[in-house]
Amino acid sequence: MMSRPGRPRHRDALRPGSTAVEQILDAAGELFVTQGFTVTSTRAIADAVGIRQASLYHHFPNKEAILEALLDATVVPSLEFARRVTRSVNDPRVALWAVTAGDAANLLSGPWNLGRLYLLPEVDGIEGFHVRRRELHAVYRELAVHVVGGDEFRCGLPVRLTETVIAQRVDQPDLAGDDVAGAIADAALRVLGVDVDEALRAAGRALVEQHVPSPT
Amino acid sequence: MMSRPGRPRHRDALRPGSTAVEQILDAAGELFVTQGFTVTSTRAIADAVGIRQASLYHHFPNKEAILEALLDATVVPSLEFARRVTRSVNDPRVALWAVTAGDAANLLSGPWNLGRLYLLPEVDGIEGFHVRRRELHAVYRELAVHVVGGDEFRCGLPVRLTETVIAQRVDQPDLAGDDVAGAIADAALRVLGVDVDEALRAAGRALVEQHVPSPT
Repeated sequence: MMSRPGRPRHRDALRPGSTAVEQILDAAGELFVTQGFTVTSTRAIADAVGIRQASLYHHFPNKEAILEALLDATVVPSLEFARRVTRSVNDPRVALWAVTAGDAANLLSGPWNLGRLYLLPEVDGIEGFHVRRRELHAVYRELAVHVVGGDEFRCGLPVRLTETVIAQRVDQPDLAGDDVAGAIADAALRVLGVDVDEALRAAGRALVEQHVPSPT
Repeated sequence: MMSRPGRPRHRDALRPGSTAVEQILDAAGELFVTQGFTVTSTRAIADAVGIRQASLYHHFPNKEAILEALLDATVVPSLEFARRVTRSVNDPRVALWAVTAGDAANLLSGPWNLGRLYLLPEVDGIEGFHVRRRELHAVYRELAVHVVGGDEFRCGLPVRLTETVIAQRVDQPDLAGDDVAGAIADAALRVLGVDVDEALRAAGRALVEQHVPSPT
């Protein structure tokens, strides 16, 4: 919540975030998830930040661009993390454990459960997000195929298990982060026929700690 | 699509279904899933059925009641099926396989992917649906606890795996029914540490065939 030096902000900012963009995303995330995307106007978002609607349009051309930025926050850090992990380890079981745990932790982080927006019909048309989400799904599947030794239907399930934290968080808003993420990673490997032992789990956890960016 | 005797219908009905209620639900399901719940008016639903708005209100008091009926169609048949299965078999592994496969098949059936509506903020307030969905989740969890021999986090995952068919169907609209349902049931047991053999799978499949109501 600290202001950056040289960038004075309202002392009584209505929203967390050190920049207007962060504050707009926080307000829009809350309103989209709790009220709905369609019924939320850019005017309502600007009001919730405490800025004028014209200032909002200085940062985002329209409501869909705000939605895309929020959706990207649910996949881009995980995609970059997954790429770093797959470059740094040879055992696909360890890599898949780490990718799953890191991605699940990302979906569990942040004050708003942004994954709730995935199934909106309005999201079908946001092509950039779908491209990046398919890339993330492809990293998972490639690792799973290596683990199983061939491409089967179940190779698509680890990333789906990760995404179950979205619905779990709806039903249980205080769902704890790291333990849950690790348990999902265990399950992702069990689906592929790998029984996770403590050594595999420790190696995966070390990768998560090494490669996940610290929260800013 | 046959009219019931004594209940003449328009010969050129715009919607599948032998009753006005079925036709309203079909039209509303399509519009909610493809256009969005908020932007769909009861007028638009009536137009898509080819009836007057006043006739629609004869069957449903408001748009939320239509939504609840659609949501119930995704859980009530599975809940009734799950209860029949758990009464009829002693091995919790076989029962859980059957409950999972039957429920996944139900979510994969029907022309509209109604599970997409689960995460809408508007659904948070539909208490009756949540009661029935929690009952279904509880049947899964009780079986999983029996399989594992204790209550652990992963006992909550089989029903979440079933619900992943919703997102899978979004990404792959032609997702095939029975094979996918069986593979999800295999995965649900693998998450609990059970490696499914052909005998267990055959016993589960027999339960599904015995207890799932034939489509009407």
